[in-house]
Amino acid sequence: MMKLAKLLPAAAWLQGYSKIDLQQDIISSLVFTVMVIPQSLAYAMLAGLPAVTGLYASILPSILYSLFGTSRTLAVGPVALTSLMTASVVAPFAVSGTEQYAAIAMLLALLSGGCLLILSILKLGFLTNLLSHPVISGFISASALLVILGQLKHLLGIQAQGDTLIPIVMSLFAHLSDTHYPTLWLSLCSLALLLLMRRYFATFLQRIGCAKTTVLLLGKSGAVFVVILMTLVVWLGSLDKTGVHIIGYIPTSIPTIPTEMISFELILGLLPGAFLISIIGFVGSMSVAQSFAAKRRQDIDPNQELIGLGLANIGSALSGAFPVTGGFSRSVLNADCGAKTPMVGIVTSVFILLILLFLTPLFFYLPNVLLASIISISMAKLISVEDFLSLWRYSKKEAFLLAITFVTVLVEGMQAGLIVGVVLSLLFFLWHTSHPHIAVVGRLSGTENFRNVDRYEVETHPSILTVRIDENLFFANARSLEERLQTLVSQNPKIDHLVLMCSAINMIDASALQSLEKIADRLENADIKLHLSEVKGPVIDRLQGSDLIENLSGQIFMTQHQAIEALKD
Amino acid sequence: MMKLAKLLPAAAWLQGYSKIDLQQDIISSLVFTVMVIPQSLAYAMLAGLPAVTGLYASILPSILYSLFGTSRTLAVGPVALTSLMTASVVAPFAVSGTEQYAAIAMLLALLSGGCLLILSILKLGFLTNLLSHPVISGFISASALLVILGQLKHLLGIQAQGDTLIPIVMSLFAHLSDTHYPTLWLSLCSLALLLLMRRYFATFLQRIGCAKTTVLLLGKSGAVFVVILMTLVVWLGSLDKTGVHIIGYIPTSIPTIPTEMISFELILGLLPGAFLISIIGFVGSMSVAQSFAAKRRQDIDPNQELIGLGLANIGSALSGAFPVTGGFSRSVLNADCGAKTPMVGIVTSVFILLILLFLTPLFFYLPNVLLASIISISMAKLISVEDFLSLWRYSKKEAFLLAITFVTVLVEGMQAGLIVGVVLSLLFFLWHTSHPHIAVVGRLSGTENFRNVDRYEVETHPSILTVRIDENLFFANARSLEERLQTLVSQNPKIDHLVLMCSAINMIDASALQSLEKIADRLENADIKLHLSEVKGPVIDRLQGSDLIENLSGQIFMTQHQAIEALKD
Repeated sequence: MMKLAKLLPAAAWLQGYSKIDLQQDIISSLVFTVMVIPQSLAYAMLAGLPAVTGLYASILPSILYSLFGTSRTLAVGPVALTSLMTASVVAPFAVSGTEQYAAIAMLLALLSGGCLLILSILKLGFLTNLLSHPVISGFISASALLVILGQLKHLLGIQAQGDTLIPIVMSLFAHLSDTHYPTLWLSLCSLALLLLMRRYFATFLQRIGCAKTTVLLLGKSGAVFVVILMTLVVWLGSLDKTGVHIIGYIPTSIPTIPTEMISFELILGLLPGAFLISIIGFVGSMSVAQSFAAKRRQDIDPNQELIGLGLANIGSALSGAFPVTGGFSRSVLNADCGAKTPMVGIVTSVFILLILLFLTPLFFYLPNVLLASIISISMAKLISVEDFLSLWRYSKKEAFLLAITFVTVLVEGMQAGLIVGVVLSLLFFLWHTSHPHIAVVGRLSGTENFRNVDRYEVETHPSILTVRIDENLFFANARSLEERLQTLVSQNPKIDHLVLMCSAINMIDASALQSLEKIADRLENADIKLHLSEVKGPVIDRLQGSDLIENLSGQIFMTQHQAIEALKD
Repeated sequence: MMKLAKLLPAAAWLQGYSKIDLQQDIISSLVFTVMVIPQSLAYAMLAGLPAVTGLYASILPSILYSLFGTSRTLAVGPVALTSLMTASVVAPFAVSGTEQYAAIAMLLALLSGGCLLILSILKLGFLTNLLSHPVISGFISASALLVILGQLKHLLGIQAQGDTLIPIVMSLFAHLSDTHYPTLWLSLCSLALLLLMRRYFATFLQRIGCAKTTVLLLGKSGAVFVVILMTLVVWLGSLDKTGVHIIGYIPTSIPTIPTEMISFELILGLLPGAFLISIIGFVGSMSVAQSFAAKRRQDIDPNQELIGLGLANIGSALSGAFPVTGGFSRSVLNADCGAKTPMVGIVTSVFILLILLFLTPLFFYLPNVLLASIISISMAKLISVEDFLSLWRYSKKEAFLLAITFVTVLVEGMQAGLIVGVVLSLLFFLWHTSHPHIAVVGRLSGTENFRNVDRYEVETHPSILTVRIDENLFFANARSLEERLQTLVSQNPKIDHLVLMCSAINMIDASALQSLEKIADRLENADIKLHLSEVKGPVIDRLQGSDLIENLSGQIFMTQHQAIEALKD
């Protein structure tokens, strides 16, 4: 049973799943289905695909994640960020709206799923840690801004091109005079209604005397009513005849990837994008899953999440859709609908399938601007100036990193921005560790504690220099350690003993070991004994047998206190 | 004066430079000139250039470094590794032997000098720290092996192509039947004589009763006699008529870069190679300079070294030569000749210039195989199996890194090998830091010292959990910290206090701060107080004013001992 639970986390909750649980989950699913549909359609449009693909992407992926994922609350499907990245990755290879475009998006989902599974097999999930908080924050804000700019053409009913700030803005200005006024009015109404619904719908339901559970269940479903209302307006007013774009006829046959289209070059070209989508999707999904898990005191297994999301993406490719992941707003809806088990994901999929089979004509008159409005509003929430300001207070350098990532995404695109951000984070970190904080320390009078001589009133001995190195010793700072110690020794020519206090050293790699051996040699030539104190267990284990320890002129002390007691005479 | 000495380090030693010093330096320079010429010719050939360019590269660069560099012993000129890299960078753009090839090599020197100056201005010298010991070691061994394989065609007198292991070996095999026997015999004689001279020449001089100083001065000049002998053999035996390749006519006009040849694309194409050459050259040069400086208790300023080497390369470009740097064997010769000040570099340059102007006909009959022999022997010394074995004992992972770099250089070339090596070093390091060592600690009975409960017999309190995190907290391990602490808390449900002992934490970046704030929130929900102890000065300074400290449910203790004393009741 343990083994099955490991392979198929669903086994854990399916065990003991009762009929009453199912009844509850069916009600939750029904509400969730209705609420999640507008979002799914909108994000498909964001990915440059027919809106209906958003529904395809909500069936099989959701079922697969429910079975193989470890979060009980995460809802998997089309998500703004991955949809946007899909559009930017596929665009160079095909024109949006063509069959080829759809096929490449499918292939991208397949590759992205493959990347996630490979990361899981090679236990490379830690790579996602490369995305630091400032980089993610800058990336998300800039991407959201790009999305809103990109939706303006739908909201104004004009033609405009471009993936990045300057081309989009130029193109919008060039076509501004073509603004289609019926579309613009519809946009303004949609935006206003959506914002009003979001703000006041729950209060309204309360006022008209709905029960608390109803308010909780329907409070966030305001968008659904706007969808219905706007569809009716377009249908009854025949606005499509005036040039307002509508979703129109939805094909019911699911596309597949034409095998003759797949080439090695195409796969190679898509791979970097697929990798970034899977990493970004995974990081976003994990943070949502973990915040829900922490609230409910449940556990998330990162490696199993890679499998769950990987299979979900492969499922999406097989359904004729595009990359998916666990989404924040989706999962909040899911939790609000009262979802307690992943069964909701499965039941919802069945409902969406039924809608696809029998109810697509209902969407015929749904105007594109409404979807653009939904996207714009949800994106606006993601632009965070507060994040930048609070970073600025904590660390100018990291705020700067956020700003650079933000600007690069805007000007050069999402992939370039991410790469620049990650490389800069690494360089900043390396810069920091290659300039280690080295403190000369002395004893706080009457204690066994040793502190920086520059910060505290401490006791020192003229013949002993104790240096605490506040950094791991590895290739990036090995050479600077040599230089710094040489300087310190030349500034203190009268010492007989140099004690390296190693309490902050967690790792010494081969490059640093070589440097320490050089330092030991030089000190020996200068008749200074080298001692080590407070070396951590794992570090001393590694050092055993090295030339440094074999030929050490001094001793290794368990504590700095013992070192001073032994050497002070 | 201080300011001048900073801009022009030569001011320091020129001050007080006497006539007697000059006399001594002239003698040293004379010997050094004779000894360094074969090497310079050989390395030019290695770079794919006419042998005479090796002399061009030994004049202006050496003078500029003598004036602007900080080492008193380092000899700057053509060096095996940078010459080899030059060949591999220029080869894709032009055919060796053409004027275009020479012009591109000059441009490469110019770019490489520019890179060094820019690194100096931006204080980016720390980037060279990216080259860890295993990567450098693997890189040098593999490059040396490639050089020897590449020289085989000269030694056998056959045509062969290829930059990397497989093409070279295949090509050698294909042409093996064309072996030119007079060349082969000459090779074997040259190799044998060079090896004998290296081993026994000093002893021989001693035996025939030379004074100690003469032995020291001439002991390493054996190669010069072989050069003279072989040149005579070729000339007297008219071996060039049988097909033995000789240096032949040496042009006395110095080439310049044809401006119409320089294009933006060419510069862009050369830039990565120029950057790698400058970094590798700088690292090699620094390690030589530092080892001499340590012996003589002098100081090396890395940033000034960047300037000195940068100007040397620009000087090389203006002299019609190719990238140069400070070389190990060159500097050893320099020291052996008794060089005490950089004046030797300047005087030697004058001598080489005189030779270029008046004595080039002497080199007419110098056979190429002799230069190939000199190169092969000096390269063979660089292949170090011992390095791999000692790494293997210390750290399998780093030995593996060396091996991968070695194999990649052999199979894919020098640049690919370096890049793979650096990226892998970074990933290994990140992997290490993203799996931080976290220890639950307790007090060693009767002391104020706290140690890992798994390694020592220590006292703990049931209501207090003390966790020591043995790693800097930053983006790469922020998320794993969250997970690990959550697990630890869930394993110890009875605790009221969690103390984070921060003695090994030297940095907390914004990503980690965010994670700590999340942890603090979760602990507060679970009614557990979070305390910090032994936080380092620079770390606590940064944390002041953050949400973590403002809303901390517990206290900040100076020492872990105080924390336990305060919380144990």
